[in-house]
Amino acid sequence: MSLLVVGSVAFDSIHTPTAERDRVLGGSAVYFSYAASYFTPVRLVGVVGEDWPQEHTEMLQARRVDTAGLQVKEGGKTFFWKGKYMPNMNDRETLEVELNVFGDFDPHVPEAFRDSRYVFLANGSPVVQAKVLDQMAQPALVVADTMDLWIQTQHEDLLKLLRRIDGLVINDSEARLLTEEENLVAAGMKIRQMGPRFVIVKKGEHGAMFFGEEAVYTLPAYPTAKVVDPTGAGDSFAGGMMGYIAAQDKHDEATLKRSLAYGTLVASFNVEDFSLERMQRIELDDLDQRLGWYREMLTIG
Amino acid sequence: MSLLVVGSVAFDSIHTPTAERDRVLGGSAVYFSYAASYFTPVRLVGVVGEDWPQEHTEMLQARRVDTAGLQVKEGGKTFFWKGKYMPNMNDRETLEVELNVFGDFDPHVPEAFRDSRYVFLANGSPVVQAKVLDQMAQPALVVADTMDLWIQTQHEDLLKLLRRIDGLVINDSEARLLTEEENLVAAGMKIRQMGPRFVIVKKGEHGAMFFGEEAVYTLPAYPTAKVVDPTGAGDSFAGGMMGYIAAQDKHDEATLKRSLAYGTLVASFNVEDFSLERMQRIELDDLDQRLGWYREMLTIG
Repeated sequence: MSLLVVGSVAFDSIHTPTAERDRVLGGSAVYFSYAASYFTPVRLVGVVGEDWPQEHTEMLQARRVDTAGLQVKEGGKTFFWKGKYMPNMNDRETLEVELNVFGDFDPHVPEAFRDSRYVFLANGSPVVQAKVLDQMAQPALVVADTMDLWIQTQHEDLLKLLRRIDGLVINDSEARLLTEEENLVAAGMKIRQMGPRFVIVKKGEHGAMFFGEEAVYTLPAYPTAKVVDPTGAGDSFAGGMMGYIAAQDKHDEATLKRSLAYGTLVASFNVEDFSLERMQRIELDDLDQRLGWYREMLTIG
Repeated sequence: MSLLVVGSVAFDSIHTPTAERDRVLGGSAVYFSYAASYFTPVRLVGVVGEDWPQEHTEMLQARRVDTAGLQVKEGGKTFFWKGKYMPNMNDRETLEVELNVFGDFDPHVPEAFRDSRYVFLANGSPVVQAKVLDQMAQPALVVADTMDLWIQTQHEDLLKLLRRIDGLVINDSEARLLTEEENLVAAGMKIRQMGPRFVIVKKGEHGAMFFGEEAVYTLPAYPTAKVVDPTGAGDSFAGGMMGYIAAQDKHDEATLKRSLAYGTLVASFNVEDFSLERMQRIELDDLDQRLGWYREMLTIG
């Protein structure tokens, strides 16, 4: 079933303790779309500048990503992020940010996308996220991501948004910031009381926690001995998750749990190389094989 | 089957952000013994001073803990630790330590304990841990714990010990320190190459990782919305684990996995109250009920 993502499309320059890459393909909507494309076609809404190479668009199109919502701003430059990962490959420092055309991103959802049943609002201002929702007909499931910046600077707008969405994906430190609860279980439960029917707290190398009407649980990350580049892990997680949900056209809690597992596994591939490189070398079969191992790992017997 | 633990017996004064307790029963061997006692009788070797109340010994004896190896040093005082937990209930600061009689603990394993098939060397100097092993006849399985202090100050002795034990239980930051590997999966694998047939890396609220001959996996912690006192979580984890192994008298990887699950669940109860208080209010049935929920939580369906 139809799946829409609205988010950033970017060039990333990434420094890790052992390697670096300059101006590789990145952005939340890109990671999300690629990850979801193992399961379902994707509709992408984003913005780039005239420095954007057509070949990136073509690569996405070849993955069943409909780029009709990708605005190209003439005279503008694409969002650029440069960051450096610490030796633990989790903490990172932003070295440079040029918002460029993403700075005043005013997402226009093409008519043909407005009937999308599944919607993912990638990290962005809650005001902008709400504007996207205003354009949608009647989605079956809306899931959003957010970040510390919006929790701090657009708190009221974020609280309003939380009452309009079905699910929130948020990382551990942001969940603590939003709720002022140190305990993540308590934090997740508290966010549910702010509106979303379910909340997913991402813990990076420690996996993800789910808080729903029926269940609260933790799924660990897939053990990865060598993390090459964690950029996009959260968005590829969300993409795998939403892609599976859209493909099933169901969002009961059993489906959500399988979707979390797929999200976990897409992310586990994603971090094994820079940019989309590792994801570009796998297919759904590889995910299913890893899902078999993952299920075995979680079977206590 | 016979299970021996050698470790500290202590009084703890514990400050958390919301409560405090003074001079409550603690120590690695005490937490371990109580946790193991759900599954099997335990033989305890430790040392206390003449301030030690006989009622604590009797409480342990009532739980099938054989205290014949608990030396009472006349004129001495029992090991005392005072600590303060930070709001995250994970990081802690030591406010006071009085090693007292534990300072020159020279464990004597009673003749009747030397045939123990299962041995747990709780955190202590690797020199002292090795002295315990020298006294044992032919244990089927020896598992040890250690800490940053020994990694830093008795490195060579610790490396020697690692070649004499079957399993090591170690926390995440210590695993990183011992191996100089930031990635915990890589760290766990590296420790196995130092000697132990299996390694368990404890991650507190994030669960535990297992590294064995056949498998590498992560089991998440049981979701706990309110951690009252994390003191003894690692030792009650080890106690639940070793207690189950000794009761089964098996240590194949399937048994080890179930033992890790039981360790996880005993620890999840332990942190719900101060000292042994929560553990004292449950029985094996409560662990089995939580194991049912835990299995369900880990079933992807």
